[in-house]
Amino acid sequence: MTRTGSIPAVLERAKALVGPSLRRAVELLSPELRPLAAYHLGWCDADGRPSADDGGKGVRPALAILSAEAVGAHQAYGVPGGVAVELVHNFSLIHDDVIDEDAERRHRPTVWSLFGIGRAVIVGDAMQALAQQVILDPKLLGLVPELAGDDLSAASAARCIADATAEMIAGQALDMAFEAVPTVDVEGCLAMEAGKTGALLGCASSIGAVLAGAPEGSVAALKRFGVELGMAFQAVDDLLGIWGDPVATGKPASSDLRQHKKTLPVAAALAAGGALAEELAGLLCESRLEERQVSRAAGLVETLGGREAAGEEAERRLGSALAALEDADLTPSAHDELVEVARFVVDREH
Amino acid sequence: MTRTGSIPAVLERAKALVGPSLRRAVELLSPELRPLAAYHLGWCDADGRPSADDGGKGVRPALAILSAEAVGAHQAYGVPGGVAVELVHNFSLIHDDVIDEDAERRHRPTVWSLFGIGRAVIVGDAMQALAQQVILDPKLLGLVPELAGDDLSAASAARCIADATAEMIAGQALDMAFEAVPTVDVEGCLAMEAGKTGALLGCASSIGAVLAGAPEGSVAALKRFGVELGMAFQAVDDLLGIWGDPVATGKPASSDLRQHKKTLPVAAALAAGGALAEELAGLLCESRLEERQVSRAAGLVETLGGREAAGEEAERRLGSALAALEDADLTPSAHDELVEVARFVVDREH
Repeated sequence: MTRTGSIPAVLERAKALVGPSLRRAVELLSPELRPLAAYHLGWCDADGRPSADDGGKGVRPALAILSAEAVGAHQAYGVPGGVAVELVHNFSLIHDDVIDEDAERRHRPTVWSLFGIGRAVIVGDAMQALAQQVILDPKLLGLVPELAGDDLSAASAARCIADATAEMIAGQALDMAFEAVPTVDVEGCLAMEAGKTGALLGCASSIGAVLAGAPEGSVAALKRFGVELGMAFQAVDDLLGIWGDPVATGKPASSDLRQHKKTLPVAAALAAGGALAEELAGLLCESRLEERQVSRAAGLVETLGGREAAGEEAERRLGSALAALEDADLTPSAHDELVEVARFVVDREH
Repeated sequence: MTRTGSIPAVLERAKALVGPSLRRAVELLSPELRPLAAYHLGWCDADGRPSADDGGKGVRPALAILSAEAVGAHQAYGVPGGVAVELVHNFSLIHDDVIDEDAERRHRPTVWSLFGIGRAVIVGDAMQALAQQVILDPKLLGLVPELAGDDLSAASAARCIADATAEMIAGQALDMAFEAVPTVDVEGCLAMEAGKTGALLGCASSIGAVLAGAPEGSVAALKRFGVELGMAFQAVDDLLGIWGDPVATGKPASSDLRQHKKTLPVAAALAAGGALAEELAGLLCESRLEERQVSRAAGLVETLGGREAAGEEAERRLGSALAALEDADLTPSAHDELVEVARFVVDREH
């Protein structure tokens, strides 16, 4: 990961705070599954040797922590939420790699390609269950009981996790269905992305507030912020999935086009209509694209305005996310850090 | 399914009570996933046409209902628990079939073999999340609020589901690990089976009581009953996995031996030691067994006392299950029906 001045300090702070609890949670997995989760999270290599890499950017833990602070609660209230959201996010990545038959992620072999499909399926299942366990019983994480919510707020947070997980899965199912159809409209694409990415970021951005027992209005505003930010995040992801630098993303160039993903730039390009859109639709029906066809498809998406449309959508959603923050009376420092994280997510290059 | 006079009436009663709520829960899945769940549950064929079959025996819903009645609560308290446990059980079957590469279940193609691995993975994921959703928010099932537990008991029930799911998955992971090792001792095998089958039956047998807010002592006794019953259930399953009639079980004869499963009869046979046990261990190391080797292995397990040992274990566990019921002051009619279900589970032939 490139370390520039633009990385918000809260990402490191959240990692330092949530990281140990996430490791403690993974320790609760059975000895057969623990090494697979640790490998996927970047904590060790395929042989179990500790690794310097510490996984992803940590956006979700940061949002969970900030959502507690934003309603005036101690940051610790966000910890079980941050752990649960990271577990759900990573279980979905492990299963998505099985579903998409992706052999590499973050420049390393994916779990299924290293340990087999069966073990990738079961470790993902275990991580989904573990997310609920740590939310419903934060004692498992060894946290100070005074800085954990009561049973009622844990039940609300568990509902928040279960609902977001269900929406995320529904979005992924729609994404899979889109791969098999010739064309998808922008509206359908946005609905899919709201599920696939919006739901879990909405959960991450409000779960600390839920655990702290914050009033419904604040929770709703934070959730709206997260859902909109998720949409911006996904629009950027869609751009990187076609025009991202393979060295930075760790995926082949235009990998989304190779997999016939009907992402936002593609849906917007197809909506432009005309002969070029028909040519693009034709290419996306090919069972396997050759290199020159991949380049041609990417060029067509750009010419047809798909790249610009997705960029605009990212900016618009970022605007909506920031506007949502103004609907609640949030702690100023946490408010400012949420804004900083949001801008970072939209400006990232991988 | 053979319908004889010995099938407890409560199984039909529980199906009539839990069935409609289970269907309502499955309706909450996204349109892409609903048909796969309905197919797996036996409600429709591969093309979505309604089917006469109504899935499994319904032991788990019956236990959930009875566990509410056993503590003097209305049977309705058991419904969300019955739905959630059925969802967890069936998600695990769908994923187990992917993991074991089983092409048939209950005389029909498995979900992955019909719809592909990716869709089988994601529908299972969705069913796991759905189980938590219906427990945490029984309004989703359209149940009368007066006959549903409060938020606190819902949180306890959600913990019960999450813990049982995690234990079940850990047991399955151990089962997978056993396939790759030459020998397993009886103790290790029983630990695996306690996770794989005991945990979820323990949850099914107590969740109605949890939802009804019953005292801890009653919940613990019912849970112990279920865990022991699960162990008896699994011992019978292990016997059927080697000596079951393929027409009744819907699986090839000795299917467990073909898959190198180290089940209880095998572990007990290997523990006998001597030349025959070494021959059995050798056969179980073959990458692929020929028909005559499968017969020889089954014969060896029997000669070495594995069949008898598993039968005795089933009876012993049934005894412990029934004894656990006496530790709590349960409603007599529900108590008697729990005994009836327990005997049915151990006497079944498929």
